[in-house]
Amino acid sequence: MSSAADSSDAMLEQLIAKEILPQSGNWEGTEEFLNRIVQVLLKYIKDQNDRDQKILEFHHPDKMQMLIDLSIPEKPENLLKLVKGFEAGRFTYEIAPVFILMEKSVMTRMWEAVGWDPEKADGIFAPGGAIANLYAMNAARHQLWPRSKHLGMKDIPTLCCFTSEDSHYSIKSASAVLGIGADYCFNIPTDKNGKMIPEALEAKIIECKKEGLTPFFVCCTAGSTVYGAFDPLENVANICERHKLWFHVDAAWGGGMLLSPEHRYKLAGVERANSVTWNPHKLMGALLQCSACLFRQDGLLFQCNQMSADYLFQQDKPYDVSFDTGDKAIQCGRHNDVFKLWLMWKSKGMEGYRQQINKLMDLANYFTRRIKETQGFELIIENPEFLNICFWYVPSKIRNLEPAEMRARLEKIAPKIKAGMMQRGTTMVGYQPDKQRPNFFRMIISNQAITREDLDFLIKEIVDIGESLE
Amino acid sequence: MSSAADSSDAMLEQLIAKEILPQSGNWEGTEEFLNRIVQVLLKYIKDQNDRDQKILEFHHPDKMQMLIDLSIPEKPENLLKLVKGFEAGRFTYEIAPVFILMEKSVMTRMWEAVGWDPEKADGIFAPGGAIANLYAMNAARHQLWPRSKHLGMKDIPTLCCFTSEDSHYSIKSASAVLGIGADYCFNIPTDKNGKMIPEALEAKIIECKKEGLTPFFVCCTAGSTVYGAFDPLENVANICERHKLWFHVDAAWGGGMLLSPEHRYKLAGVERANSVTWNPHKLMGALLQCSACLFRQDGLLFQCNQMSADYLFQQDKPYDVSFDTGDKAIQCGRHNDVFKLWLMWKSKGMEGYRQQINKLMDLANYFTRRIKETQGFELIIENPEFLNICFWYVPSKIRNLEPAEMRARLEKIAPKIKAGMMQRGTTMVGYQPDKQRPNFFRMIISNQAITREDLDFLIKEIVDIGESLE
Ligand SMILES: Cc1ncc(COP(=O)(O)O)c(C=O)c1O
Ligand SMILES: Cc1ncc(COP(=O)(O)O)c(C=O)c1O
Repeated sequence: MSSAADSSDAMLEQLIAKEILPQSGNWEGTEEFLNRIVQVLLKYIKDQNDRDQKILEFHHPDKMQMLIDLSIPEKPENLLKLVKGFEAGRFTYEIAPVFILMEKSVMTRMWEAVGWDPEKADGIFAPGGAIANLYAMNAARHQLWPRSKHLGMKDIPTLCCFTSEDSHYSIKSASAVLGIGADYCFNIPTDKNGKMIPEALEAKIIECKKEGLTPFFVCCTAGSTVYGAFDPLENVANICERHKLWFHVDAAWGGGMLLSPEHRYKLAGVERANSVTWNPHKLMGALLQCSACLFRQDGLLFQCNQMSADYLFQQDKPYDVSFDTGDKAIQCGRHNDVFKLWLMWKSKGMEGYRQQINKLMDLANYFTRRIKETQGFELIIENPEFLNICFWYVPSKIRNLEPAEMRARLEKIAPKIKAGMMQRGTTMVGYQPDKQRPNFFRMIISNQAITREDLDFLIKEIVDIGESLE
Repeated sequence: MSSAADSSDAMLEQLIAKEILPQSGNWEGTEEFLNRIVQVLLKYIKDQNDRDQKILEFHHPDKMQMLIDLSIPEKPENLLKLVKGFEAGRFTYEIAPVFILMEKSVMTRMWEAVGWDPEKADGIFAPGGAIANLYAMNAARHQLWPRSKHLGMKDIPTLCCFTSEDSHYSIKSASAVLGIGADYCFNIPTDKNGKMIPEALEAKIIECKKEGLTPFFVCCTAGSTVYGAFDPLENVANICERHKLWFHVDAAWGGGMLLSPEHRYKLAGVERANSVTWNPHKLMGALLQCSACLFRQDGLLFQCNQMSADYLFQQDKPYDVSFDTGDKAIQCGRHNDVFKLWLMWKSKGMEGYRQQINKLMDLANYFTRRIKETQGFELIIENPEFLNICFWYVPSKIRNLEPAEMRARLEKIAPKIKAGMMQRGTTMVGYQPDKQRPNFFRMIISNQAITREDLDFLIKEIVDIGESLE
């Protein structure tokens, strides 16, 4: 290697020794790093399209696994080393086997985090949590009534499923799409913290059976969309065991918490699930889309989804075809969703995500504390367990109104404050109503670059805009 | 503007006046262009994450439409002008409204190409053609039996659907996933050119009705996966009209042909479809994933998929919420699949795609001719209509064998030739068997950079490897 390259490596190394998140005030480092990556990619494009170069460098999957270490490490890996690894190795053969190996490597860490044996588990990357939930429900139906794949729903009993009233609408949507029917997806009430009430679940299951329905699937939400609530997984797992129901955990939002030993207890019991949806594009900060549907038992996904399209998945290829995973998917062509996650995870290591999640939780706790201290703020859930902090701001003018009038006024406050934010262009927080409550703000702390000062600023802005309203 | 920028613009302009496809031997132009785009993106990242900058520049959708001309032009647009447009305007507000407007602008051209009134049509970008086909079948079921969304398939008649035996397996898969059942998706035989036989379709529909089934959905393939065949759309449309069935056209692969007035006739009748799947990530050269499911009638998609998740799609936002399209999707978060297509299409114009497709068709015809002229090659379909050319190479050693032995030997030839290609690393062509035939090559000409010389080289390689086999 030339000494010019050496010295520019040394320079880059120094620049990226500091944080390179674009918000972190080390723009030179961020820019240099990104430019370096672009140069690697440009070289790749050039070589790949050069008629004098081989169009592929064929390696068998087992050899490929030895050529590149695809495993996710405990400790962070040096970013520059990672980039140089790419410069050194051009790795594509057939359509996408390196990415299949990366999926496997990433999923292995996810299976372990859930508490499953990676030798026995299965999974697939899906275009979003909604479709991941659909995969899970479809597999559950297949396990119970494999004939439905071929003969549909006509001559099997009337199935029904259960999810909390605060769960994501994609569960009901899956039930509609699969031909089970949205109305046979029952909403189980939640307690004041937004958690499914297990007794209510069991009562509903029993009631359904009495009415001649066939319960088959229960979804627990781990990190609900609005309140960030974690359903009581152990209790629900017990109920599912008693009634022999498929136990799905929608951890699209909360899954990342499994990477923090400090906070993992909030998902205790998740290892008893049959399937878990986990969106790295949420808490883990991967760009949209990056979403996994994980299964405790290998095999079902394939049985359920394969349509034996021999022409695509033929068995006489000159390499081990067990690495072709297309037949497990409802999709045919799949966008490469794993590479960005693999690269991030490789460079952060398990340690990096642990810190990242703990830091976000600390910030959320800080924000909650500050809101409790500040006049006019009212929390929807007194002690949020996660990164969702839902609250009203009640301007002083309306603090002493009667409940009914207060409610009517409150309904309009959040939209007005948000409009003010959009005008100023300084901050942005979403709001919504729920069944009982008028419009409230839903603050989600998931950006890694957030600081305590940002949160203080936000509180100040809300007070400022809120107090200035007519 | 500084004169430095001016002069570098002039230089760039000159460099990109020639073709900038990376294979085209103008690497300097390709590289400069990509670097310029990267600089625009870097500046965007920098500004976007600068705490001193506004986090958004809010514009109402109608105003936004005036600020940027999002429409797809007839003639190519100057690339540099497009890039400079991005430099000038930072356009994001709320989550993704610019991209919604881009989807609308791109779909308008697609609706027009299909032959529909854009004022009345509808559509959605889906993660791949398989899911687009699922959207179509789901909407068809909803139109016929809207109650199935809520009550499932139990108390409605037994539905069934039809597709050609050479159609993509995602049609059968959709039937399985939706709870209709894969076995109620009937395969209609095709003729020797791979086209669905309309008489066979109608006979099967009548037979199904006699057996008490309820036909509801017919899929025609426009550009079949293996043979590139176009089903006879007009004839099938007539049958669908007679029997009041939903008429879907899976033009995932062939859709791009609608952009060539010269070749469009192969899809004559497509305007009579109720829904069309069209994958710009195939013929139009957009990167995976980019796939649209188009509907002739507006409204159904929303009725069928909306689950009224008020908290996500609330109606009191400070702008025209008819631009929020989330509720039409089975997905929740969606990857931005449209931007790349919009940019390409904007820069090529309608004219550019017309030329591109005509050029590919010319190459395919050239390849077919050359193969017919060259000893040892045998076409599966004598006169391919599209970009799929399926053939055997029969090495001279086995040309005089008895049919049965020839067949057994042929089965192994294509895999061996492909293995030879992978060893040399010079070319790559896929192969597969079909129900009647031993392994054959399936050449797809879709790369814009292919030249006649490349095709001559490929033929030479196949002969060379084929003749050298033991
Ligand atoms: C005719 C046809 N329909 C549908 C599909 C599926 O498209 P996708 O791979 O985008 O899911 C394909 C893909 O090969 C196809 O050829
Ligand atoms: C709990 C939960 N499940 C599922 C989803 C759907 O995920 P996606 O948007 O990736 O489809 C969400 C998204 O907000 C969610 O919060």
